[in-house]
Amino acid sequence: MQLGLVGLGRMGGFMAKRLLHHGHTVIGMARHDSTVQGALQEGAITQGTTSLADLVAQLDAPRAIWLMVPAASVDATLADLVPLLAQDDVVIDGGNSYYHDDIRRAAELKQKGIHYLDVGTSGGVWGLDRGYCLMIGGETEVVGRLSSIFEALAPGVDATSRTPGREKVGGTAEKGYLYCGPTGAGHFVKMVHNGIEYGIMAAYAEGLNVLHHANIGKDQQQVDAETAPLSNPQYYQYDLNLADVAEVWRRGSVIGSWLLDLTASALLKDPALSQFEGRVSDSGEGRWTIHASIDEGVPAYVLAAALYERFASRGEADFANKLMSAMRLEFGGHLEKVEEGS
Amino acid sequence: MQLGLVGLGRMGGFMAKRLLHHGHTVIGMARHDSTVQGALQEGAITQGTTSLADLVAQLDAPRAIWLMVPAASVDATLADLVPLLAQDDVVIDGGNSYYHDDIRRAAELKQKGIHYLDVGTSGGVWGLDRGYCLMIGGETEVVGRLSSIFEALAPGVDATSRTPGREKVGGTAEKGYLYCGPTGAGHFVKMVHNGIEYGIMAAYAEGLNVLHHANIGKDQQQVDAETAPLSNPQYYQYDLNLADVAEVWRRGSVIGSWLLDLTASALLKDPALSQFEGRVSDSGEGRWTIHASIDEGVPAYVLAAALYERFASRGEADFANKLMSAMRLEFGGHLEKVEEGS
Amino acid sequence: MQLGLVGLGRMGGFMAKRLLHHGHTVIGMARHDSTVQGALQEGAITQGTTSLADLVAQLDAPRAIWLMVPAASVDATLADLVPLLAQDDVVIDGGNSYYHDDIRRAAELKQKGIHYLDVGTSGGVWGLDRGYCLMIGGETEVVGRLSSIFEALAPGVDATSRTPGREKVGGTAEKGYLYCGPTGAGHFVKMVHNGIEYGIMAAYAEGLNVLHHANIGKDQQQVDAETAPLSNPQYYQYDLNLADVAEVWRRGSVIGSWLLDLTASALLKDPALSQFEGRVSDSGEGRWTIHASIDEGVPAYVLAAALYERFASRGEADFANKLMSAMRLEFGGHLEKVEEGS
Amino acid sequence: MQLGLVGLGRMGGFMAKRLLHHGHTVIGMARHDSTVQGALQEGAITQGTTSLADLVAQLDAPRAIWLMVPAASVDATLADLVPLLAQDDVVIDGGNSYYHDDIRRAAELKQKGIHYLDVGTSGGVWGLDRGYCLMIGGETEVVGRLSSIFEALAPGVDATSRTPGREKVGGTAEKGYLYCGPTGAGHFVKMVHNGIEYGIMAAYAEGLNVLHHANIGKDQQQVDAETAPLSNPQYYQYDLNLADVAEVWRRGSVIGSWLLDLTASALLKDPALSQFEGRVSDSGEGRWTIHASIDEGVPAYVLAAALYERFASRGEADFANKLMSAMRLEFGGHLEKVEEGS
Repeated sequence: MQLGLVGLGRMGGFMAKRLLHHGHTVIGMARHDSTVQGALQEGAITQGTTSLADLVAQLDAPRAIWLMVPAASVDATLADLVPLLAQDDVVIDGGNSYYHDDIRRAAELKQKGIHYLDVGTSGGVWGLDRGYCLMIGGETEVVGRLSSIFEALAPGVDATSRTPGREKVGGTAEKGYLYCGPTGAGHFVKMVHNGIEYGIMAAYAEGLNVLHHANIGKDQQQVDAETAPLSNPQYYQYDLNLADVAEVWRRGSVIGSWLLDLTASALLKDPALSQFEGRVSDSGEGRWTIHASIDEGVPAYVLAAALYERFASRGEADFANKLMSAMRLEFGGHLEKVEEGS
Repeated sequence: MQLGLVGLGRMGGFMAKRLLHHGHTVIGMARHDSTVQGALQEGAITQGTTSLADLVAQLDAPRAIWLMVPAASVDATLADLVPLLAQDDVVIDGGNSYYHDDIRRAAELKQKGIHYLDVGTSGGVWGLDRGYCLMIGGETEVVGRLSSIFEALAPGVDATSRTPGREKVGGTAEKGYLYCGPTGAGHFVKMVHNGIEYGIMAAYAEGLNVLHHANIGKDQQQVDAETAPLSNPQYYQYDLNLADVAEVWRRGSVIGSWLLDLTASALLKDPALSQFEGRVSDSGEGRWTIHASIDEGVPAYVLAAALYERFASRGEADFANKLMSAMRLEFGGHLEKVEEGS
Repeated sequence: MQLGLVGLGRMGGFMAKRLLHHGHTVIGMARHDSTVQGALQEGAITQGTTSLADLVAQLDAPRAIWLMVPAASVDATLADLVPLLAQDDVVIDGGNSYYHDDIRRAAELKQKGIHYLDVGTSGGVWGLDRGYCLMIGGETEVVGRLSSIFEALAPGVDATSRTPGREKVGGTAEKGYLYCGPTGAGHFVKMVHNGIEYGIMAAYAEGLNVLHHANIGKDQQQVDAETAPLSNPQYYQYDLNLADVAEVWRRGSVIGSWLLDLTASALLKDPALSQFEGRVSDSGEGRWTIHASIDEGVPAYVLAAALYERFASRGEADFANKLMSAMRLEFGGHLEKVEEGS
Repeated sequence: MQLGLVGLGRMGGFMAKRLLHHGHTVIGMARHDSTVQGALQEGAITQGTTSLADLVAQLDAPRAIWLMVPAASVDATLADLVPLLAQDDVVIDGGNSYYHDDIRRAAELKQKGIHYLDVGTSGGVWGLDRGYCLMIGGETEVVGRLSSIFEALAPGVDATSRTPGREKVGGTAEKGYLYCGPTGAGHFVKMVHNGIEYGIMAAYAEGLNVLHHANIGKDQQQVDAETAPLSNPQYYQYDLNLADVAEVWRRGSVIGSWLLDLTASALLKDPALSQFEGRVSDSGEGRWTIHASIDEGVPAYVLAAALYERFASRGEADFANKLMSAMRLEFGGHLEKVEEGS
């Protein structure tokens, strides 16, 4: 079928290409003509334009227009787009919007007879080949209208082994796309997905960091009041090859995962990870997951800690740390790097 | 080759069977004759006995004897076994021993000319088919002697896709077994593996719990001073099908993993998980991972929280919770279930 | 001066009494006549009524009316009260409102020429004697108008020792009340105050729980694969008297505090804390502190964990815990209470 | 009475002085003669020496010798000291030793008829005036022998208000010293005391850091995919005076404490804390508290997070952070500082 696609960046461009491979027609729109031309040359889109009006004009009614733009730009894009649309058109937000915004937007668009779907999309730069995992919220009828698009984007049943018993239950979940519920449900599920992602990434990172320091017993230890002594240096004498460790875990172990595959790949390229400073970004969904856990009154220790580790990696704990050093100076006369003489 | 195997439980029995399938000879030993007979009938072992002396007698020198017994029983087993062994024999501890114990045991056995390998073994009840992930510590020469055993137990390269660039590096890691370093290194790596496992499990569990409570806005809210009000019930109106959510994440998403496969399977069988009380055991390696992180001075917020969640699930926070209620009564006159009127 | 006070519960009643002791006139209002009569008999208020209209009528313009009602009731109270007020009157919210609500309300009242102050009030049931710690947000001029009220409610400089150098700086902070900034600043500071309170309470509770279990080595240990063995029972043989421990820390130690005083008192009354179930309430401000930390991108591991411990104490981790047991069954064949055989 | 004191540093010197003020005789020993001379000039000790043999010679049997040296130096000191001692002498370790070491040392000394007390000592540089909080382990008879020393060092009942009901119970706890139990109990209680201290310090530091960033809404926000947008900058417009905030909390609030007093003092001196880098030391007892919590199977989320924050403040999370950035590059093509495009 025919789809309008706003945003031809990393995610949007690859999604377009996958849709074309599956026989769909994609009219692409991006702000910069160079992006549009690039997408055309790569065979990612059927036609392209830098104008929303032009995009709308090229689509048959009722239109389906998929937004693949930064969460912070969705409202601005809608402000320009919606006046161009007609009743029964559908706007799909495939980015990382906060589901609160979905609820607000769907209500606004509904007043004009325009439909809104929120589609959490996971897959990163690999989705072109692996397919995208799609978590969908909105009106069921409208979701049904787009099922061939979802089918094309999603990985399909064969992408992994079948869950025992799933054959009796059916549904689209095992194809890689899921209608989760009314407006916002798609981004809600995607939000928690990313919250979990942060937790899993932190679990690997912390564990591998423990392995990375397994040779600390080889260092000379200071014997003064200022350093917590390593009481048993003989237990920390291992120089571990982390690329090999990540690799061996990929087969047969309980912690095999796609994130581990990527970790093994990254460590193989450069075991010292020297290209990174260790300032880890976060994009909002991990934050909103914690907001939701708190609103619901549900503990999420691991997910919150994983998020906070990202904040701390960017220096945001500095003032707190200075305060702790200041307290130590006050009660114990400790200059920084001195004993807890309390 | 020929291997003696002490312990024919869930793990040991399946490992024996996999070895036989690969053409090895396994002399099995278990304390109860019924266990031995069962293993023989299942074709898991070549021969069986309930006597360590008998086991040793049936093996050609230099012997290789693999222990697959609870960590708490290894020392008792060694006390009985070692006097029966001869110089250059090898004992392999394939269980979940603390690597400190490995270091002590290897030193003791070395005095008698007996070798000791520590082999962290992951794979659970699935290892028979999937193969076992093996993390090995000890003397390299002795490890080499057993390579055909490791090769048979491990999943093999084909068990998953190849890491790009791995073809140039080689090594056994991509076969699913790895020589990690001197004595203790195998169990050290396995220890951290389990620490990570706890973290990943908690990440999924917490996230799915947030999804589980996504309909909390449908509940009537109490309007009194005693309950933190849910300010925006309209945002928590989703009845999510968690079996479907776990399933859809299995394909194309960033958080696909084997633990997710199992979670999808468990939720499909019983979305309410009604057979469980939620008292989560831990077996030691998660604890030791935290010990190591502290000895090394390396933060492991997520791994520690995941471990503590298990403790708390078993009621071990109760006294602390009572203390907090007691403080609230003291400062605010709050009976339990009342407002933080500080 | 003359003050109208809405809400004569635990907090409101004691505050009124303290104001009267300092020579102020308090017209009290409560919904139930029995509450009003009780307050009159206790000498807590000058006059009382069950009618807001009556309250307003008895006050000289420009009026100052202090609300001491549950956070969830403030908007309803304002809906009834505001139509009765005249330009230049002041409403003070002394409860635990979310500062977002302060900002909205102040803007609404400003349109009618009515002033709004947010005053975070700490002190619990002890404030009558100890005085109340007041954190104030709003227009500086209006704050100034009420300074004699704040002065009466606050503990005064003599309530504790003077911070060295404070004599040169001056200000009201050392009297126990502080103008924090524009609307919302008072409740923002009070919000974080309560977030810290949760963290401190959890620190004591966790630590005392570790002391409470210091005799765990006296228990028989199970030697099976299902229980992480206590490797060194000889280190956990202490039967500690926690009431004495809390008491001894009250003098000379680094961790002396008012919360510790209360803890010592509670433990002295009943070391087993048998009147408590350990279901710990939270009233909103701890939650909002975490929201703020996330909006700001600032790590707050301890404050978040402390909040989550309260959620978990009320059973809200149950589903997550069941999921972890379910995963363990899937990968290791573990029934609940069995070994981590991964 | 007469006491030998080994170690005349910050802690030891002040303790000696306090003992002299209370009429005791203190023979001090330090390695450097300048330290000894300084202590003599300050009137901290009665006599002084740089020789352990000399110290022992000057004391009447049965001797009481208090060690106030870094935990890492205690064994070396004992190795030199013990051969000089006679049966029934007492050695007191007043530093921050691990209680495991106490148990070992007491057993070793017992074989020679020498007694050993472990005395956890809190008070920092303030103890000279405030008195020291003493947590004592060992043989009750020997503890009794030293009660006048403990009485002199401890703050005494009048140091704070009396816990209601304490007058009926009695005991020394309210004087500021406590016999906690057999060998190791004193340092066990002190260990947990410090664990709690870390938690409380972190609670204040995190909360004040949230206040410190309360003006983040005044910053320009980037609108791109790389930054989690601050959705409501209007809520973060407060420039708070943290010295005043800490000060106001000192009176009447629930979170008043001695650590808050010190925090208020530090912030008054320099609100920017510019003399600190924020590298926070830890001295062992916080670590051991976590070890104990894990051995006991008791959750200590807050105490562990507080400890890990110190590790992270010293850069020990760097490798983990690089790993997370590496994973993000792998799955999403994100260079550092880019969107979570999963």
